[in-house]
Amino acid sequence: MESLVKPLQDLVDKFRSLDGVGQKSAMRMAFSVLDMQDADAFSFAQAILDAKTKIGLCSVCQNISADTVCPICSSSTRDHSVVCVVEDYQAVLALEKVKEYNGVYHVLHGTISPMKGIGPDQLKIKELLERINNGEIQEIIVATNPTVSGEATAMYLSRLLKPLGVKVTRIANGLPVGADLEYADSVTLYRAIMGRHDI
Amino acid sequence: MESLVKPLQDLVDKFRSLDGVGQKSAMRMAFSVLDMQDADAFSFAQAILDAKTKIGLCSVCQNISADTVCPICSSSTRDHSVVCVVEDYQAVLALEKVKEYNGVYHVLHGTISPMKGIGPDQLKIKELLERINNGEIQEIIVATNPTVSGEATAMYLSRLLKPLGVKVTRIANGLPVGADLEYADSVTLYRAIMGRHDI
Repeated sequence: MESLVKPLQDLVDKFRSLDGVGQKSAMRMAFSVLDMQDADAFSFAQAILDAKTKIGLCSVCQNISADTVCPICSSSTRDHSVVCVVEDYQAVLALEKVKEYNGVYHVLHGTISPMKGIGPDQLKIKELLERINNGEIQEIIVATNPTVSGEATAMYLSRLLKPLGVKVTRIANGLPVGADLEYADSVTLYRAIMGRHDI
Repeated sequence: MESLVKPLQDLVDKFRSLDGVGQKSAMRMAFSVLDMQDADAFSFAQAILDAKTKIGLCSVCQNISADTVCPICSSSTRDHSVVCVVEDYQAVLALEKVKEYNGVYHVLHGTISPMKGIGPDQLKIKELLERINNGEIQEIIVATNPTVSGEATAMYLSRLLKPLGVKVTRIANGLPVGADLEYADSVTLYRAIMGRHDI
């Protein structure tokens, strides 16, 4: 016997298909499942099905949500005139952790990337335009990642949205807090200098 | 919204319950599931259920198996007079990869560990005794890990099995191939010297 028993191999393959999981991790996780109580394994399987069936997209901000309109979009305490445009759900989570931003969000579900065959039509840009056309929005903060495709998407959005009379801003580049100039890359340093402000 | 949507949080919790999976990995995996096609997520859930329901223990060697008797125990080309006793299924996989061992196995499913409340009765030692009583076995190679509990288990098995007239051996300790004496710990070095042989 040189290979795993079939049902175990199948499970290892499934774990391997997850983002960032290698052979050894997948094996370890599959063995964890074998060691589980039957009820725990059953509820694990059910959690996967529930996540797929019960989670959809918020009809307003396109963030993942268990409701038609997500808690942020339906909140009366948030400022619905400021929309922070992000690449994905993880970015919303990161920004919410800061607890300082009180506007709402719009999730693009990716960035423009010709290499991957992703153009503006594959992103939730049409839905953003609809929100702007509805009139309430005054400022769009483009918070895509400071990567090549994130910057390209920010540039695209800026050109698309400015003619609509909405203020378009971009999150700042610079040194992360606690960083050391010695180890900063030159593009970041350049942007930190260009973005200098009075103290 | 400071927390994840409920079905997603549930799934993250399930991944976290797996051996060696932390919060960030669990989140990444849960997002992978969300990004899956529905059919893939369904077959993932099914694979978990299959692994739990279709895999049992081989009635002879106690290794995990999809059949009543595993392929190794039912093989006619293997030497059934030599039994290699290991802690877990992973050890069988590791030894099978070597492709040099032609005997059979016995999986203890753990080691004696008073700290964890595991005594000989919780291990598959009774089943090993039954195999020995059936008469065919001539040598038991104790291949538990060279850890405190693995050594204790090896010692226990040696004392238990030798009076039964079966030869009991232990896998060798020493320097791993490719190692550097400079970085070897002193217990390993001591055992490497004690275990020296003619060349």
